[in-house]
Amino acid sequence: MLNKLRLLTPGPTPLPERVRLALAQDMIHHRKDDFHKIMARVEGALQTLFGTKEVVLPLASSGTGAMTAAAYSLFKPGEKVLVVEAGKFGQRWSEITQMRGLNVVKIIVPWGEAVDPNQIADTLNQDKDIRGVFLQISETSTGVLQPIPEIAEITRNTDVLLVLDGISAIGLSPCPMDALGIDCLLTGSQKGLMLPPGLALIALSARAWERASSIEPGCFYFNLPAERKKLAKNETHFTTPVNLICGLDVSLDMLLSDGLEKVYQKQWALTMLTRYGIKAMGLEFLAPKNFTWGITSIKLPEGVDGKQVLAIAQKKFGVCMAGGQDHLKGKIVRIGHMGWVDWSDVLAGLYALDQGLFEAHGFSGSRDYLEKAMAAYQTALTVEPGQDIPEVLVRS
Amino acid sequence: MLNKLRLLTPGPTPLPERVRLALAQDMIHHRKDDFHKIMARVEGALQTLFGTKEVVLPLASSGTGAMTAAAYSLFKPGEKVLVVEAGKFGQRWSEITQMRGLNVVKIIVPWGEAVDPNQIADTLNQDKDIRGVFLQISETSTGVLQPIPEIAEITRNTDVLLVLDGISAIGLSPCPMDALGIDCLLTGSQKGLMLPPGLALIALSARAWERASSIEPGCFYFNLPAERKKLAKNETHFTTPVNLICGLDVSLDMLLSDGLEKVYQKQWALTMLTRYGIKAMGLEFLAPKNFTWGITSIKLPEGVDGKQVLAIAQKKFGVCMAGGQDHLKGKIVRIGHMGWVDWSDVLAGLYALDQGLFEAHGFSGSRDYLEKAMAAYQTALTVEPGQDIPEVLVRS
Repeated sequence: MLNKLRLLTPGPTPLPERVRLALAQDMIHHRKDDFHKIMARVEGALQTLFGTKEVVLPLASSGTGAMTAAAYSLFKPGEKVLVVEAGKFGQRWSEITQMRGLNVVKIIVPWGEAVDPNQIADTLNQDKDIRGVFLQISETSTGVLQPIPEIAEITRNTDVLLVLDGISAIGLSPCPMDALGIDCLLTGSQKGLMLPPGLALIALSARAWERASSIEPGCFYFNLPAERKKLAKNETHFTTPVNLICGLDVSLDMLLSDGLEKVYQKQWALTMLTRYGIKAMGLEFLAPKNFTWGITSIKLPEGVDGKQVLAIAQKKFGVCMAGGQDHLKGKIVRIGHMGWVDWSDVLAGLYALDQGLFEAHGFSGSRDYLEKAMAAYQTALTVEPGQDIPEVLVRS
Repeated sequence: MLNKLRLLTPGPTPLPERVRLALAQDMIHHRKDDFHKIMARVEGALQTLFGTKEVVLPLASSGTGAMTAAAYSLFKPGEKVLVVEAGKFGQRWSEITQMRGLNVVKIIVPWGEAVDPNQIADTLNQDKDIRGVFLQISETSTGVLQPIPEIAEITRNTDVLLVLDGISAIGLSPCPMDALGIDCLLTGSQKGLMLPPGLALIALSARAWERASSIEPGCFYFNLPAERKKLAKNETHFTTPVNLICGLDVSLDMLLSDGLEKVYQKQWALTMLTRYGIKAMGLEFLAPKNFTWGITSIKLPEGVDGKQVLAIAQKKFGVCMAGGQDHLKGKIVRIGHMGWVDWSDVLAGLYALDQGLFEAHGFSGSRDYLEKAMAAYQTALTVEPGQDIPEVLVRS
């Protein structure tokens, strides 16, 4: 009762009140005019968000559903594909593509590092049978941002399809689909889009549509050509999650009303806030370079029990952050700064983390980390998003 | 602005305010204690609703997702199954099972009629290779209620799995899974459960679980054994549609607080209200016998344009009802009396239908059909649900 819950996990995220009120609206019918108007507006906004002239299909599923749809719609069993495994969600691409019966070649990247685009180029050069490359834009388990423009540069001049999980990237950092030449871009509702989980979005390039149209879908529920046909009538193939679409209508309006540049600027500033604060606290990053703009992964000092730190942050300060997954369990903290989260929420997160570390282990870094974090934030609002900020400005 | 929208379609349905407020709550994390407590409570209530001791799994999908999950989890490509096609959703079972690669034997039933259980028994007797029977409890496209107890009686003494789409039946009429010996029972959130679409529920019998555990799932996204493992920790395999689960927590409380018998009694009374009203209007039913308790399908008089009738009902009176699907387009009206709908809403539906018929075609039946409808409703509240009511009582 003393504290508000502050959800600083990498999804689900807090929701804006306008979105919550839209979610609470009474039902309208998904095959009638009132809904068609909303769907048409949402579709236009999604194309802006994805940076594509192609359709963006909503699916009633979690993000993993869209990943399944991609693997089961674009490739036939036996075809060879390359998966970049740089964390838990890279592994999920492997599991999905293997269950689809694809012949999977892997590039394994240590957790916390980005893939080297040259390694992708070399692999594709050495094996001309590879028909697709699967990876994450942002690997949620590590907070790594992959060098997508460089990778897309490699695939778009070949007949290899580039399939990207943008679940913790879309709406958080720029990734213009058509300009880069991405063949499949997908996301879920519960991260950058400031919605509850339950809706996934997926778009295909023209050449990916050719492929999808020539293959019988591997799973009845994920029939992308049938979805595209229905979307032309502003409907979905099966019953639409109506209230999530109504919420999406509002959240897209919020994201696009001042231009996506402002959204990315905010995300960059929150990232700088977090990173300069963490640095001032004397902590290290799991992803020192190539970091994503919605999650910061922090290595805990040797001997620190991450679970205990997070429990104190939650219990005493109401801040809910995420730990590590699999072999990083207990060893890292992941602060989500995505969705309906602002500077003050992230500041609360830094403070709760610091206090958790102190109470659990007597760990204590600099005593002006909050001020440094805020100085970085304010400076980052004035630079080009993605551009590092001069240390001197931060310290002033 | 003159009229409220009254959604009398067979899903989605209007939502109770308590549910809508739950849907509007800010996010909590789906892998933390607060959510676990809700999930545990929901699970217990779902077992009561389904009448089963087995787990009831929530899936982030529409009802068709759960249908896909059933066909892709319980049978291997090449296995022979029997599908009862008695309408559009029976056809969907055929499409799904065929895409799964099953060897599909069909019983085709004219739209508006129920299947004869003897025909199922004969088919199974003649072909011992058949491993499963797929049908709807309630065929949403026709409003027919299938004779499930008689069919379950046939399958439960063999090794044939009975797989039931309960999408427009669960929470509307009784279908106790364990007592009848049903092997797979599934539904969607947007009908009897008074929620928006986007959540599906599926339960398997012990012998169906044995089957599912011995087969590699045909689609990565629908991995029922993996879901069951996670549900033991009050979680789902992939990200949960958190706000739908929170809404379900409330709607199940509403459905179960006075006992399910009261819910079925109300549904039976609404069905009698509709049917006696329609009869008094001089109209005929698509399903004269074996009708479901949440939808009434009405044949339109020869020459009447159903689309025009529905347009008048919607535009002039704010009542949204459904037409026919496929070859019944324009020829029938389907009144949904399910979800958060009460007697007054259905009365409004009858009036709007009558006025639509009159304005479009000068059609006019009895002038006391609303009173007769209400007399039937009140009488039906006093009889055993499912028991027809003496005409004399209605007319008094």
